[in-house]
Amino acid sequence: MRDEVGLVDDMRRGNRLALARLLTLVENGAPAGIAALNALFPDTGRAHLIGVTGAPGAGKSSLVNQLAHYYRHPTTLETPDHARIVDPAPAPRRVAVVAVDPSSPFSGGAVLGDRVRMRDLAGDPGVFIRSMASRGALGGLAHTTAAVVQVLAAAGFDLILIETVGAGQDEVDIARLAHTTLVIEAPGGGDDIQSIKAGILEIADILVVNKADRPGVENTERILRAMLEMSPHTHPPYSAIGTPQSPLPNPPFWIPAIVRTVATLGTGIPDLAAAIAAHRAYLDQSGEKQRREDGRLQVQLEALLSDTLLARFRAHVSPSFYEATLLALRQRQLSPHEAVQRLLDQA
Amino acid sequence: MRDEVGLVDDMRRGNRLALARLLTLVENGAPAGIAALNALFPDTGRAHLIGVTGAPGAGKSSLVNQLAHYYRHPTTLETPDHARIVDPAPAPRRVAVVAVDPSSPFSGGAVLGDRVRMRDLAGDPGVFIRSMASRGALGGLAHTTAAVVQVLAAAGFDLILIETVGAGQDEVDIARLAHTTLVIEAPGGGDDIQSIKAGILEIADILVVNKADRPGVENTERILRAMLEMSPHTHPPYSAIGTPQSPLPNPPFWIPAIVRTVATLGTGIPDLAAAIAAHRAYLDQSGEKQRREDGRLQVQLEALLSDTLLARFRAHVSPSFYEATLLALRQRQLSPHEAVQRLLDQA
Repeated sequence: MRDEVGLVDDMRRGNRLALARLLTLVENGAPAGIAALNALFPDTGRAHLIGVTGAPGAGKSSLVNQLAHYYRHPTTLETPDHARIVDPAPAPRRVAVVAVDPSSPFSGGAVLGDRVRMRDLAGDPGVFIRSMASRGALGGLAHTTAAVVQVLAAAGFDLILIETVGAGQDEVDIARLAHTTLVIEAPGGGDDIQSIKAGILEIADILVVNKADRPGVENTERILRAMLEMSPHTHPPYSAIGTPQSPLPNPPFWIPAIVRTVATLGTGIPDLAAAIAAHRAYLDQSGEKQRREDGRLQVQLEALLSDTLLARFRAHVSPSFYEATLLALRQRQLSPHEAVQRLLDQA
Repeated sequence: MRDEVGLVDDMRRGNRLALARLLTLVENGAPAGIAALNALFPDTGRAHLIGVTGAPGAGKSSLVNQLAHYYRHPTTLETPDHARIVDPAPAPRRVAVVAVDPSSPFSGGAVLGDRVRMRDLAGDPGVFIRSMASRGALGGLAHTTAAVVQVLAAAGFDLILIETVGAGQDEVDIARLAHTTLVIEAPGGGDDIQSIKAGILEIADILVVNKADRPGVENTERILRAMLEMSPHTHPPYSAIGTPQSPLPNPPFWIPAIVRTVATLGTGIPDLAAAIAAHRAYLDQSGEKQRREDGRLQVQLEALLSDTLLARFRAHVSPSFYEATLLALRQRQLSPHEAVQRLLDQA
């Protein structure tokens, strides 16, 4: 326990090695990691969490890198007037990047293939990059990612970019951790759309059309807009509102914004940062942020409670008895209720 | 208990009133309903479950009605040659329809607005129609629907069409109950696509382009095909296979089929029935059916076990203590782990 108190103190003083070690403990579900999370939890509410998702090839990594760079050096790119409305005097902010790749077997430090482009951010103490893989003992990648993000928030990072690779339920669950979710698309080749991620569009707060210097960008944007208009999750219907070219703070509701970027050139990055700031203002001023956080904490509590109860129960039932019960269920000798009753009777 | 044994016996003898009463008991989570499910469970594995989903306006109800009618009277519509390969001598089969509408407050009998079109099926003892709403005490609409479907399967219906209205997680969970999932689309007006349901496309075994006599049908089909090609859930990639115009039985893998229909005219219904039969043959012959059923039963067992453990636990914790703990969590005075520990200590 002394060790982990020392680590927490060192991390709070800005020691990056202590932070990296803490993250590993937390990722592995080690008792010291859980103790550290408990100690840090009061400080975990301040960061703005930005989820970034989209199909491979849409340019997620470049975009995340450019966005991180912009947050560190907000005066290096020209800021359009409508972006200044939201954030008239952008100041450098501390940025963490969590790159989640469920298909990779490795978690750990900052050395990832496409992190090479982050070279100009290396050595900046205001940036921290962490890659995460499918490991993690906390019960699902979303749980582990939530814990890692909480440590980074407690470490004082203002903005945490959570980048996910790949599709599926994991990705959606991880995106749900974020306050603001970006979905990245790019104009396709022969087809109109490079990617439509099932289950992803409905969680998009901001749609980014990256590689917007490619042919077909108008078509991609048109299709995305049509999909938004048809989405039952947009309230009021997108089509009833018109198209917000420059999202402003404090609307009574949020209309998913569409922003064009060319990440490799930095084009559109200030507009994207402005849209993110507008969404953050919306969340704060509408009370939606508190509602989302309350709901998320309740879900987290109940999931953890269920997992703990199930784990305790499992410890009392022999694996062979559990397997035999499952087999009887598969062979329809027992109904699900009877199988549960049999397991409960034996425990 | 005598009552419910009598109901089960009457239901097995084909008594429709007994069936309807049993379904209500099961839907309400009544002890007699659970006892009946236990008694019926050995007989629940024989029916083929067909999920039908899609946006409002795509013509789901008409399509379900026509499909039910075709299964009852398979010789009234002309069957194309490629459909005869799958099912050379279609015989009438017993059909149940479960219409699930999470937005409706009413469950019960067969009288629904758009069930009027079922008039020519009324009085046919080989057809049973049940509407379901958001009620249900078994923990979630998907759970309740699963139980209702099990009763109908035990009652001897060969085919059970599960029609869902509305979007969201409920719909996806319900679709996962089915052996074969149809996703219904229709050509749009000005836009190319009438609906793209997030999270739905990836569970489609068969895509139905209904209202195929409308302009824009080629475009709708083209977009659906492009989406299938991009889907990471199609293995091997759809684009590597080519386009199956007439699905044949016994492939080593399943390529989502696209079938055009005009439900109001009966056009394409035999082709759709053939595609469903081909998918059923694929499931049986590949072993995929057993894998899906085993997986589903295990998930059902663990969900029921979790629910039971959580309910038992809740009965030992006072609601005010639970609320106070949740509040402390929201105010970040307790971490999630600490909150769980506090709840477990008190129970």
